[in-house]
Formats: sequence, structure tokens, C-alpha cells
Amino acid sequence: MASPKTIALDAMGGDHGPQVVIPGAALSLERHPALSFIFFGDESRINAVLDQHAALKAKSRVVHTSNVVSMHDKPSQALRRGKGSSMWLTLEAVKSGEAHAAVSAGNTGALMAMAKVILRPLAGIERPALAALWPTVRSECIVLDVGANIGATARKLSELALMGAAMARAIFHIEKPTVGLLNVGVEDIKGVEEVRQAHAWLKGVADLPFDYKGFVEGDQIGHGAADVVVVEGFAGNIALKTAEGTARQIGVYLKGAMTSSLLTKFGALLARGGFRVLKAKMDPRRVNGGTFLGLKGIAVKSHGGTDAFGFASAVDLAYEMADSGLIGRLTADLDTFHHKIEQVASKPEATSAERAG
Amino acid sequence: MASPKTIALDAMGGDHGPQVVIPGAALSLERHPALSFIFFGDESRINAVLDQHAALKAKSRVVHTSNVVSMHDKPSQALRRGKGSSMWLTLEAVKSGEAHAAVSAGNTGALMAMAKVILRPLAGIERPALAALWPTVRSECIVLDVGANIGATARKLSELALMGAAMARAIFHIEKPTVGLLNVGVEDIKGVEEVRQAHAWLKGVADLPFDYKGFVEGDQIGHGAADVVVVEGFAGNIALKTAEGTARQIGVYLKGAMTSSLLTKFGALLARGGFRVLKAKMDPRRVNGGTFLGLKGIAVKSHGGTDAFGFASAVDLAYEMADSGLIGRLTADLDTFHHKIEQVASKPEATSAERAG
Repeated sequence: MASPKTIALDAMGGDHGPQVVIPGAALSLERHPALSFIFFGDESRINAVLDQHAALKAKSRVVHTSNVVSMHDKPSQALRRGKGSSMWLTLEAVKSGEAHAAVSAGNTGALMAMAKVILRPLAGIERPALAALWPTVRSECIVLDVGANIGATARKLSELALMGAAMARAIFHIEKPTVGLLNVGVEDIKGVEEVRQAHAWLKGVADLPFDYKGFVEGDQIGHGAADVVVVEGFAGNIALKTAEGTARQIGVYLKGAMTSSLLTKFGALLARGGFRVLKAKMDPRRVNGGTFLGLKGIAVKSHGGTDAFGFASAVDLAYEMADSGLIGRLTADLDTFHHKIEQVASKPEATSAERAG
Repeated sequence: MASPKTIALDAMGGDHGPQVVIPGAALSLERHPALSFIFFGDESRINAVLDQHAALKAKSRVVHTSNVVSMHDKPSQALRRGKGSSMWLTLEAVKSGEAHAAVSAGNTGALMAMAKVILRPLAGIERPALAALWPTVRSECIVLDVGANIGATARKLSELALMGAAMARAIFHIEKPTVGLLNVGVEDIKGVEEVRQAHAWLKGVADLPFDYKGFVEGDQIGHGAADVVVVEGFAGNIALKTAEGTARQIGVYLKGAMTSSLLTKFGALLARGGFRVLKAKMDPRRVNGGTFLGLKGIAVKSHGGTDAFGFASAVDLAYEMADSGLIGRLTADLDTFHHKIEQVASKPEATSAERAG
């Protein structure tokens, strides 16, 4: 049976605040009755919406604060002025043990900075990574980093592999997930030195808690080539947004094509069940929620502009990660991994042989 | 009237050699009767196919060589062993003035290395860039670099902007194209130092031959946010391949959705005209052809696995670039640009102010 879990929610985050956060929580509660919630934010605005959701209200507690982090605050401003804000208190509830995970649709940079200060990085992790769920023709994969950090050393890329694998075990329930390193292909340019170095290390370490598949190219992500795709944050963010943009672009083409004549309109009407299937598949709200990995607590970032359906996906993700004991597993994996990497990284001849190959 | 132009073709390049190159040239000749061709490669294999295309044969010359660059050769191997190969001779025909542009579907790294050695970079350009055409909801845009160079300084990014703009003027016939710098957004992380520096410079230079639009995010490329999108080659290659992969992925979803019931199958049958429109829009062969920019001659790289229709797109592109006087314009623009950039780059106070903003 699922164990009871409490999720802390920043009720003021995102474009719509309580109007989306509360109905989103209600949707997630229907799917996960073991959940309970703490909402942080403007008490009167929260209660006004919560009163319309009796089942949710019975499982919820509200903590008032009038301090809210703006979408325009820089991370440094948010840290200076944001103490006691709804975002801050949401994260502190995880730190204090009152909640098992935090979800906010607020300012990404502020959330990242606060999460790092409040939840603290795991031993050996300098900065947390942002991981995204990415739909594939098979099911879903995890891509990280999608923008928390620009650039990554070979060691950081190796850590991303390990953290992504721990997340895959937690939410996909695969004991030994496959992991690929995103690169620009093998034929002409073999990528940056850091990527090749991480490749050599990951191939060289025995008994990793994942199945390292080698390099993966951009077109292989959606094909489902690996459960986890590792990339530094600049290229990772661009890849994620490019995929989102391409999906929208094809949606525009499809709409144009299906309304190009009376006959196509009639055919599309008959086939509307199929278009519903397609729309559900392509719905970005299904995989809403970026996760900060590498912290001593679970913090999920929802898209700021999403609706209740999308916010519920972010809450589901937070629940699944809390329920799977991700943090404990991640801590243990990182301890072992750092040890193993030290061994491989201290053998320069293995690396040189790799480079020549 | 279109002026006569000769295109040199590496008949042995790509997965299918003359079987695709020659029918591709024939298709392009139908669209551009002012074209003539020189085919380089195995004479007997070329003539066997050319004999089936009388109109093309009348406008073609065949130069025999038995030396072929393999898809698996590293650039350094290709340079050592590839003298006199079909790829080499194709590029030399441009250098000698016999041809106005070269097209090859062969090994990208080898083509890049040979093009640099034979055609030589323009003054001030260290390494050429690879530019791709990218379909948008409006029409098309140019994205560069898509993999010729990993990483780019602010100066290199500024050059890419100028080269992309010159190409846009040549093939889109827009006098002052819009240019954007690909970045990871403004909200949380403002990107790498080189990108911000290039941004400051491009904003600071008066009378550029393009309209600088500032930062563009990955999802804005296909939206048509700019005629030219500038990015260093690692992220650019990943973006391009991710978009291709996403388009294929949605094709798989669409097929699955339209065959999910008898009714959707029947509806899709009635709407097949619309699906044909969609397929044409999404056809990657329409925009097949990466161009090396920054050389003293025109060299176009076709996808190795394309068919005659796709190869013809690459030949069309080579023709349009040759016909537009791209190289002369690019040379002049680069001369002026380097001068202007020197002026802006030598004002450190302008840059610091920018950084603080």
C-alpha cells in the first residue's frame, strides 16, 4: 500500500496562484488518496478556492504569509527579500520534515537558489541539476540538466548520469536504467573533451547502477534510445525547448492541413477520436514538472503558465519521488560512485587509450 | 533571366552514390534549366545512370576517378589519402573556376576539412561554419552553426550572425534579415559569457546589414522568430537533430492515432489530401543541404541517406547561392563588420554597462 505523504505547495507560485495550485492538488489527491497537503500563501485567497474542494480541504493545512517571490526577481534578490515568502516556507517544510516534497510554479532561478540554501546539496554535489521528463515513442525518459547549470565537467556529467539513473529507478521502477550521453554524433565531430572524458569514465567503471549506452544524438531522445539522457544545461535547455517548439509547429501544420478543404474537415471530424489520442500524447501538461536533483530534499518546479491538469502532474511527480525513497538511494549511489570514479579517474593510461580509440 | 551556372557534383558521395546523385541533378535541372553539371567519380557507374537521363546528359560532363572518400574516414585520413578523390576533385572544380558551387553527400568531416584546404577561408575567418535551413510556421530560417565547430567566442558568434544574414539575403531575398542569438531564456539563467558578449556587441554596432532581434529560445526557432538563428555548433547540432527527432516522433503518434479504430481509419482516408499537405510540410528532404559558410567558394553538404528528391534540394540550394553572388557580398560584409566590431570591442565601458543591465 502507498504510505501517507505530505506535499508542501507554494500556493502563490505561477501565473495563476491558488486558482491553479489548489484544483491541481485536488486532481492529484483523487489519484493518490494517501496524500495530504500544506499550502503556503495568502490565507484568504487560498481558503476562497479551498472551500470549493471539500475532500482536499479535509487533507490540507494552510500557513499564511503575505510575502511572495515575484517572477521578475533575480535569484539574489529572492534570497535577500524572500525569507518567509510562500516559496521559502514551502521548501522549509521539507527541510523540517513536515513535508516529504515541495512543489512550486514560481520563478525558476529563485526556486533553485532557495532550494540550494534551504535543502542543501548532497555530499559531493556543488549545484543541483534540473531534470525533465521527456515523452518518447516508447514511454518517457529523463533528460538532465535542462538549464540549472551552464557547462559541465566530465565529473559533473558522470554525476548527472548517476542522479538521472536514481530518478529513473524511482519513478519508472526500472532496476537498471539505460543511460546515454548526448553528443553531436560520431562521424564528423566527436564532441567536447568533457563529454568524451565522461564517456571513457562511464565505460570504465564496473558495476554501475545503470546500463551505460554511450553517445546518443538529438534525434534519438524522442526515439527512446535511453531511459536517461545526460547533457550540460545550455544544450539541454535548448534541446528541450526546441522539442516543445517543434511539437507546437507541427500542431499548427496539422490544423492547417485538416482545415484545407471541406473533405479534410469532414474526414478530420470522423477521425476526431484519433486526434484526441494524438492530442493527449502531445499534451505538454502530462509531463509538467522539472525536478531539482542533488539536494537533501525533493523540490519540483511546475511550469509557471500551466493549468490545474498540468500542476497535478507536477504534484504526482513529487509524490512518486517521495514515495520511492529517492533521496536515500541517491545518497548511497553518490557515495559509491565518487569512490569508483576516483579509481578510474586516477588511471590516466585508461583514458589515453580511450582517446586514441 | 537566370544566368548559366555549373555545379560540380561528387557522384560517389552518400549511401547510394550515382543512383541518387544523378536523378537528383536531373530533377534540379528541370527546375533550373540554366544549370550544367560536372560529375566526379567512377565513369562507368556514372554513365550507366546518366544514359537514362538524356536532358541531363546533354548538360553534363563526367570526370573519372576511382578514389573515393569512405564514410568512415576521419578528416585527417581523408586529407592524407583523399587527393584526387571524387570529393576532392569536386571542390577543386570550384577553386579553379570550372564550377560555381560544389555538392557532396559524402563524409561531413572529410568534406569540411577538404573544403577548408581547397577553397580556403575568407579573410578573418578561421574555420567555416555549417548552416542549415530550418522550416518555420512562416517559411524557413537559417540556423548556424549546426556542428562544424564546437564552442564559439563572442567574435565568432558575431561572425556567424553576419554570415547567416548574408546567406539569408542571398536565398530569401530579404535585404535586411532579422537575426537572433539562441540562448536559454532571460528569467533564470542568462546564458554563457560569450553569448552575452556577442549580444552586447550586436546591439552596439550601428548600421549592421541585418536587424538584430536579441535572444531567441529553442521553442522560437520553428515559430519563425528570426530569419537567422545563431548558436555555437554543439548546441546547434543537438537542436537540429532534436527537432528532426521530434518531427519523426509525432509522425509515429499520428500514424498510431489514425489507425486506432475503423472510424479514424475511414476519417483519415477522407482527409488524405490534408495528410499529404502535412507530409509535404514536414518532409525533411525539402530542406536537405547544409552549407559551409566562410569559404572562398560554395560547398553544400547533402544528407548521406537522402534520395533523389532530397539531393535535388541540395543542388537547388547550391544554385541559389551561386546565382546570388553570395561570396562577394559575404567578403564585403565581413570586411566592414570586422572594422565595426573592432570599434565596439575596444570600448570596454560599453560592455560593462551592458553586463550590469
